[in-house]
Amino acid sequence: MTAPSPGFTLGPNSYGKSGVRLVRVDRDTPRHTIRDLTVHTALAGDLDATHYTGDNTGVLPTDTQKNTVYAFARDGIGTLEGFAERLARHFVDTAPAITRARVRIEEHPWTRIGDHSFASGEGGERRTAEAAYDGRDAAITAGVCDLLLLNTTDSEFSGFFADEYTTLPETDDRVLATAVTAAWDYASAPADADAAFGAARAALLDAFAGTYSLSLQQTLYALGERILKAVPEAREVRLSLPNRHHYLQDLGRFGLDNPGVVFQAGDLPYGLIEGAVRREAP
Amino acid sequence: MTAPSPGFTLGPNSYGKSGVRLVRVDRDTPRHTIRDLTVHTALAGDLDATHYTGDNTGVLPTDTQKNTVYAFARDGIGTLEGFAERLARHFVDTAPAITRARVRIEEHPWTRIGDHSFASGEGGERRTAEAAYDGRDAAITAGVCDLLLLNTTDSEFSGFFADEYTTLPETDDRVLATAVTAAWDYASAPADADAAFGAARAALLDAFAGTYSLSLQQTLYALGERILKAVPEAREVRLSLPNRHHYLQDLGRFGLDNPGVVFQAGDLPYGLIEGAVRREAP
Amino acid sequence: MTAPSPGFTLGPNSYGKSGVRLVRVDRDTPRHTIRDLTVHTALAGDLDATHYTGDNTGVLPTDTQKNTVYAFARDGIGTLEGFAERLARHFVDTAPAITRARVRIEEHPWTRIGDHSFASGEGGERRTAEAAYDGRDAAITAGVCDLLLLNTTDSEFSGFFADEYTTLPETDDRVLATAVTAAWDYASAPADADAAFGAARAALLDAFAGTYSLSLQQTLYALGERILKAVPEAREVRLSLPNRHHYLQDLGRFGLDNPGVVFQAGDLPYGLIEGAVRREAP
Amino acid sequence: MTAPSPGFTLGPNSYGKSGVRLVRVDRDTPRHTIRDLTVHTALAGDLDATHYTGDNTGVLPTDTQKNTVYAFARDGIGTLEGFAERLARHFVDTAPAITRARVRIEEHPWTRIGDHSFASGEGGERRTAEAAYDGRDAAITAGVCDLLLLNTTDSEFSGFFADEYTTLPETDDRVLATAVTAAWDYASAPADADAAFGAARAALLDAFAGTYSLSLQQTLYALGERILKAVPEAREVRLSLPNRHHYLQDLGRFGLDNPGVVFQAGDLPYGLIEGAVRREAP
Repeated sequence: MTAPSPGFTLGPNSYGKSGVRLVRVDRDTPRHTIRDLTVHTALAGDLDATHYTGDNTGVLPTDTQKNTVYAFARDGIGTLEGFAERLARHFVDTAPAITRARVRIEEHPWTRIGDHSFASGEGGERRTAEAAYDGRDAAITAGVCDLLLLNTTDSEFSGFFADEYTTLPETDDRVLATAVTAAWDYASAPADADAAFGAARAALLDAFAGTYSLSLQQTLYALGERILKAVPEAREVRLSLPNRHHYLQDLGRFGLDNPGVVFQAGDLPYGLIEGAVRREAP
Repeated sequence: MTAPSPGFTLGPNSYGKSGVRLVRVDRDTPRHTIRDLTVHTALAGDLDATHYTGDNTGVLPTDTQKNTVYAFARDGIGTLEGFAERLARHFVDTAPAITRARVRIEEHPWTRIGDHSFASGEGGERRTAEAAYDGRDAAITAGVCDLLLLNTTDSEFSGFFADEYTTLPETDDRVLATAVTAAWDYASAPADADAAFGAARAALLDAFAGTYSLSLQQTLYALGERILKAVPEAREVRLSLPNRHHYLQDLGRFGLDNPGVVFQAGDLPYGLIEGAVRREAP
Repeated sequence: MTAPSPGFTLGPNSYGKSGVRLVRVDRDTPRHTIRDLTVHTALAGDLDATHYTGDNTGVLPTDTQKNTVYAFARDGIGTLEGFAERLARHFVDTAPAITRARVRIEEHPWTRIGDHSFASGEGGERRTAEAAYDGRDAAITAGVCDLLLLNTTDSEFSGFFADEYTTLPETDDRVLATAVTAAWDYASAPADADAAFGAARAALLDAFAGTYSLSLQQTLYALGERILKAVPEAREVRLSLPNRHHYLQDLGRFGLDNPGVVFQAGDLPYGLIEGAVRREAP
Repeated sequence: MTAPSPGFTLGPNSYGKSGVRLVRVDRDTPRHTIRDLTVHTALAGDLDATHYTGDNTGVLPTDTQKNTVYAFARDGIGTLEGFAERLARHFVDTAPAITRARVRIEEHPWTRIGDHSFASGEGGERRTAEAAYDGRDAAITAGVCDLLLLNTTDSEFSGFFADEYTTLPETDDRVLATAVTAAWDYASAPADADAAFGAARAALLDAFAGTYSLSLQQTLYALGERILKAVPEAREVRLSLPNRHHYLQDLGRFGLDNPGVVFQAGDLPYGLIEGAVRREAP
């Protein structure tokens, strides 16, 4: 059994269950509905004993956390944010040693093709929600991940700082493609979380399609500001935008021109633009 | 330099370029369109020399094959099947040693969100096409891959053979989920390849939603037969249906019932059902 | 319930369980040993009824196949080939409707770091084995997959056929890298399957390191021939060699030379060279 | 062009190039050596203009960052930590608007099989290094990721907190498996970074193999403390340990016992234990 040696100490820590795959079917009418979630939990609190001596008195097993996810789904999911919050509150309220819980959920979308039949692209865009509870306040975050967006024009990149290693030509017309991951914190809970999410997503798409972009950073800021404007309860948006480079192919080698028509979609490496946009304190 | 030792010989072989990522933008009007393809080529022919002695006289480099894909896209893709066939014919017709070419393409779908803006789930369903050309005939195959489908009811599994290792209970109501990969050979080219694909895909969805399933094999056969009925030019459909098990959770341990409502979506292992459905010779 | 419509018929088909993850620990002495396998089964036979009408009388469930894998592991795995064969024979001998079984296994390697402790790179090279049994004969295949190999020199590529789309410069010194998948059929069972595998793998490494390569095809042939020479019981080797391109970087733009020193490891696209090498009939 | 609307502001942000794949060959003697790295850069500074108006005057393009990685590799990599630091310092010292740079590197290991030939498992354990430079101080972190470890015994889990959703049985003998990601910060640079890394990795393996574990948290703490003891310059270790559950199979259903011998290696969900271990301030 290990005990902390003099001069060493435990720092921040958490534990939980990742990748809990939950599918819930509503069969109340012949026209079924479906919810398809992946849930991740992380708990923290007074857990020195299990780290120092393996005394697990305070540990609510990750297996129990998984069971709880399934049990709580019995009577419906409701909003994604609400389900995350119910779980986070439960863990802190139930297990005496647990003082903080964080529950993160991704929802996989399905499209109806019949009364009890659904189709879906696999692995694509997911809606996300996260609730963090510390026994007093629940911090709620909503978002989206892996939402692929592409503009075929209205994107430039020029006027940048150049040093001896700079070879990139300036361009006044390029393809701009990215896979948006965005998350916005709520200062107060929106009356209708689903409507707020819908407004945020629509604002995001609209901003992407409507912004004449001089840099992906500019697009990032525009997306964030538009989400904040569309959702008054949101106070900060964090965005992660991989720049999925599309390389214009040199067809002149084959006696052909290429006026912005034929591109190679690049893979590695990719640019990565990350940033936050905030509502200023009044 | 290696030469074939007595008693050894080269068997079937091919070579080509895999994963050629091609994006083509049509900018002829302000309302742009986009095609997003991944192309794979494979050539074969009189290639003993490069295998035995490294004499590459007959080898059209895979780099050239890649270049050809981009060059051929300059003036438009057209139907997926037609683009595959143009490329396959070109390789055989151009390179003297090459007698057979196979070109396989996956198309990644995008949804319009503006005149020059598109959104897409990533990594989901793709339309596929394949052309194999041997200098005389072009064999054309169309298909779809990773099309996720799920029925929340109307699926049973019972009456199966049981041995000493069988523990699976019979069920008269289960979730049936799969990721369809289907490919159908054309006996003759359909007049409109896009219309034929659309009819096949619609038949597939309709058959999945409408089949009361007693086994995933029965569903497979129904999908195949319905595709053949919808597309008269198709003579054989091959289907690969992973059975994405959904495990009903035992909530009785927590004092809850679970009348087909809460499931764990399984990952590994998965069932794999594969089969072909054929039009009989007249 | 679906019945075959006139004019349509079932073609070749199979079904089984994929991705059965089995870890077996031998605890007979304090110095434990471990085997870590992923098993895939595929059965075929008289299965028209389940396809046409959902009559599952002949179907040994894939769940049972999974159970059988775990049960058969109880008393030890033995050679990978032998374990695959035991399972394949069992399925055909047990289930009346099943006339052919194919069992494919990948073994994940571990390195000892203590009496009961092991370390491993994840997702790397795996040894493979496959047994196909039809009630009379068992066909055995051994192999390896995802074995990464790289030569920093002694590789050329020149003298190839060039057409109007060829831009690749000839090179007399390049990096040659590939991820070998190889599988060899046994004409007769080797007395010691583990020794035969070891000899084949050693021959493969030795051939790769020792071949001055004028094309990856030449390397492929050399690997195959050397494996056949090292393992007299093997009659055919099939190899799949992705060409993991390493692009020499143009550092001249920065006033630096680059005499074969700095490369970008490419991702997509990649060349794909596939072929078989056979022992000639005597 | 977008300008910040009143009431909104830019928060923390960075940008860089991810997934730069660099292979460097040392050919100074006939016995070549190889370094295989993936490099990620992230820069921050006075970048409001590009976010608000698309004025890129301060932006050192991510393409230039990539070029710099290749150019800096020309004369050798040296230690992983040193290469990361050289790059981070360069970006801040060169580009006036850039005030902070973070460079993260993963090294992919290769094993020699000849003078210029190497073999490697793919996708396994990588050594990692990170340098963060703010114009004054360089913070250096070393580590390892995806190092798979498994103990076949000497692991218990019992005495945990149980609520109404707890069904996990206590166990006094289980398989303990994890894929270690560990990173330790240096308070001062070790004289020999490679030797320090080797000592840390050895301590980690030794602690894993030698710890009788009552919880994975206890193992985590033991790993961290042992690394700090082995490397005096390290002041904090952060560890992320996914609990790769191995489920003992119930073979009693088939008339067989299973005394800790046959396991299913689980996939999703998995436990996730994360924590830091610190050297106390003197």
